[in-house]
Amino acid sequence: MPTEQAFAAATRLEDRGGGTYAADVPDGWDIVGNVDGGLLLAVVGRALVAATGRPDPVTITAHYLRPGRAGPAVVSTEVVKEGRRFTTARATMHAGGQDVVTALATLGTLGTSADVLHLDGAPPELPPVGDCELVVSGDGFPPTFMDRVEVRLHPEDGGLFRGEPSGVPQVRGWFRLRDDEPIDTVGLLLAVDAFPPTIFNASLPAAWTPTVELTAHLRARPAPGWLACSFRTRFVTGGFLEVDGEVWDPTGALVAQSRQLALVPRG
Amino acid sequence: MPTEQAFAAATRLEDRGGGTYAADVPDGWDIVGNVDGGLLLAVVGRALVAATGRPDPVTITAHYLRPGRAGPAVVSTEVVKEGRRFTTARATMHAGGQDVVTALATLGTLGTSADVLHLDGAPPELPPVGDCELVVSGDGFPPTFMDRVEVRLHPEDGGLFRGEPSGVPQVRGWFRLRDDEPIDTVGLLLAVDAFPPTIFNASLPAAWTPTVELTAHLRARPAPGWLACSFRTRFVTGGFLEVDGEVWDPTGALVAQSRQLALVPRG
Repeated sequence: MPTEQAFAAATRLEDRGGGTYAADVPDGWDIVGNVDGGLLLAVVGRALVAATGRPDPVTITAHYLRPGRAGPAVVSTEVVKEGRRFTTARATMHAGGQDVVTALATLGTLGTSADVLHLDGAPPELPPVGDCELVVSGDGFPPTFMDRVEVRLHPEDGGLFRGEPSGVPQVRGWFRLRDDEPIDTVGLLLAVDAFPPTIFNASLPAAWTPTVELTAHLRARPAPGWLACSFRTRFVTGGFLEVDGEVWDPTGALVAQSRQLALVPRG
Repeated sequence: MPTEQAFAAATRLEDRGGGTYAADVPDGWDIVGNVDGGLLLAVVGRALVAATGRPDPVTITAHYLRPGRAGPAVVSTEVVKEGRRFTTARATMHAGGQDVVTALATLGTLGTSADVLHLDGAPPELPPVGDCELVVSGDGFPPTFMDRVEVRLHPEDGGLFRGEPSGVPQVRGWFRLRDDEPIDTVGLLLAVDAFPPTIFNASLPAAWTPTVELTAHLRARPAPGWLACSFRTRFVTGGFLEVDGEVWDPTGALVAQSRQLALVPRG
């Protein structure tokens, strides 16, 4: 059952010393048994913040090695370079005796609003929150993970859960943490992998597309409130697809860009 | 003086055992003293190929820690996970007693042509190679690096070296290795950081924008010949900018996607 501050609880760490942190991934944050990649990224990001003393991931890349399961895990970190403004560090999450995800990141201190020198893009045009469809879990699908966050899909993109794909591999919608829990830059790492797969809206056989790699660039700390998000896939080629994400805060600031590489199952 | 097979020579490694490789970065591959980030990425990529026994980087992320200089360097690698189809590994280049660049990558075996399931994009429309402007080094600028590769810019984008920016932070053009040296997927890692900065074409004060991070996704091995490339910046905000790159081979296959995060110097 989701509780208040559920995301903070899901990413809470215990400092074990020597750059090592114990995590305990709660039940329910999974997609058919596999913990959401964004939550894994957030747990790793939280450990990197603790290890470096820098409050904000600026750029973080995760490579997903094995499916993550709920339960105890350990994140070990290693600082690669500490500079004046940024610190670069690595982190690997281990669980059940295996490495689950490994990451490389540079952290620093971001502003609360991004000063704009050039902008060729805008938040996605979304109907008001109340006119967008809240995604809730069903009988296995949508997965229980969707109940741990609040994702409201653009009506044009929401048919993917009813067997009515839009034909365009894109999903747009509003995101916030459950019960409007305040979201920091580590929370943005959850946001960039919280939406249903773009491929479900393509006129292609929809299948589970495991994430090989995900990179997020964060530009600013998000202002409180609903985040406007868009995810789009342009190229499904060579057995891979990319998903490009943008997250905009209520002031209209671009707070995150993301790209992930996922594997298209072989027919 | 460029020689035949100059890129192969610049990325040649000597196996020192234990996952460690000695490199010797030749003179001339620099931008005002700092070795091109794409060449550093290629040297690191070459080491990762050797360490994993996988011929092709599928996704590689580098974080740039300090400017690289010509001369001897050592790349140390560590395999994180060896799977059935892919191997994930880390690599760090050390030179002059310091870490210069660190990378995280997943490698595998790519096809020679990318089978296409969905394509929303196309190679940039470029005039024939002979009608595009070969970039050659000048008195410090353009840098000597430009003589180590063959970059031919779209005429609309070529004014950036004459103080005539197009106003659009984009550069498009043809790329090949000098003397048409065959290019493999490690060579694509050079291609994605071989063009002049997009920001030089913006109506902004042009300045050196150091790369914090660069991620490349490779989709297929390139067919021989000129590669059609485009690089574009959409967001200069929060003190950062991204550069999104696409590299297409002569058969019209998307062979690489890249994104880098660079720092906008504080006014």
